[in-house]
Amino acid sequence: MGNLASTRERILEQGLALMSQAGLEGVTLGVLADQVGMSKSGLFAHFRSKKEVQIRLLEHTAVVGAAHIIEPSMKEPAGLLRLKALVQNWFGWAPRAGLPGGCPVAAGLFEFDDVEGPVRDKILEMEAQWRGLLMQTVADACSQGHLRSNLDVAQFVWELCGIYLSHHAAQRFLKSPDADRRAQTAFAALLERAAPVKRKKK
Amino acid sequence: MGNLASTRERILEQGLALMSQAGLEGVTLGVLADQVGMSKSGLFAHFRSKKEVQIRLLEHTAVVGAAHIIEPSMKEPAGLLRLKALVQNWFGWAPRAGLPGGCPVAAGLFEFDDVEGPVRDKILEMEAQWRGLLMQTVADACSQGHLRSNLDVAQFVWELCGIYLSHHAAQRFLKSPDADRRAQTAFAALLERAAPVKRKKK
Repeated sequence: MGNLASTRERILEQGLALMSQAGLEGVTLGVLADQVGMSKSGLFAHFRSKKEVQIRLLEHTAVVGAAHIIEPSMKEPAGLLRLKALVQNWFGWAPRAGLPGGCPVAAGLFEFDDVEGPVRDKILEMEAQWRGLLMQTVADACSQGHLRSNLDVAQFVWELCGIYLSHHAAQRFLKSPDADRRAQTAFAALLERAAPVKRKKK
Repeated sequence: MGNLASTRERILEQGLALMSQAGLEGVTLGVLADQVGMSKSGLFAHFRSKKEVQIRLLEHTAVVGAAHIIEPSMKEPAGLLRLKALVQNWFGWAPRAGLPGGCPVAAGLFEFDDVEGPVRDKILEMEAQWRGLLMQTVADACSQGHLRSNLDVAQFVWELCGIYLSHHAAQRFLKSPDADRRAQTAFAALLERAAPVKRKKK
């Protein structure tokens, strides 16, 4: 059992790098078996289909993402500091976490927009969980008085996701050296629009 | 020659719909030949490789996109009206133009971020041309006095592209009914930040 589990772990680690570079559809059992140094039938002992590999890899992405993005951010107190930490750890997280080809979920939003099935459902579920965490974090910043109490939280998160996608395209596709700076500027402007209305001095 | 040209045209039309749904890598010569109702070797009389088909399809996308997005916008005078028309015609353009699976260039930004070669180069070139047109349109709005004269035009366009990508993901992947409304709200806020500083009355 120990060996089976560790082999499975090794396959997922290798698969993560492959998926991040070749895309979800680029994860074929043949290529993955080659990379791990086992036969295709050996791989079948661990995963029964390409779809199962894709789903397990997405689940593994969530585990790695939580360790790199969420856990360190939760050390900050709920509110603006935690929101800033979350954004800081989120943008560009994938290469820092050993996924050289960028965030598989962002890529999946475009790769699987027309492909119905369990892989799309898994990406949908992960996107909803992540969006939920962002919403909660922004709502906390509002109730702490760090952001406007009447802020449209869903709109804030919708625009923040746009900044993330533009940063992903700028950094990964355009290889643009100013991707981080542009994203910081956009996020600062979004925060400024969400700032609490200043009260007049009594 | 006339027949060759019209067959080629028919292949490109069919290929455009296929590419928009299956992604650039999903355009295989076998599937495309099936859809057009010809043999794979018949297809080879028109295109010598999968890469050539992909590049010709991207070029055809640019032609269709220009007709649906750019041409109608150019009827508006240079400045804010043209910028608004361009954004109006751009967001969600692909399904309106017969590409049911969404914008192939947006998808290509994520699909080809790690795949070097002529297809990536073509997407880079198209992205740069499109970004250039947006920059020119925004710069015109500045010089007309419709937007701030000291606006960071590149930053404005960078953020606008983020709104487009978030809209694409919301509309196509999440099938979210409020995608258009969220994008309009975000664009209006971007314009407001770029508005000319109001002069005090003399």
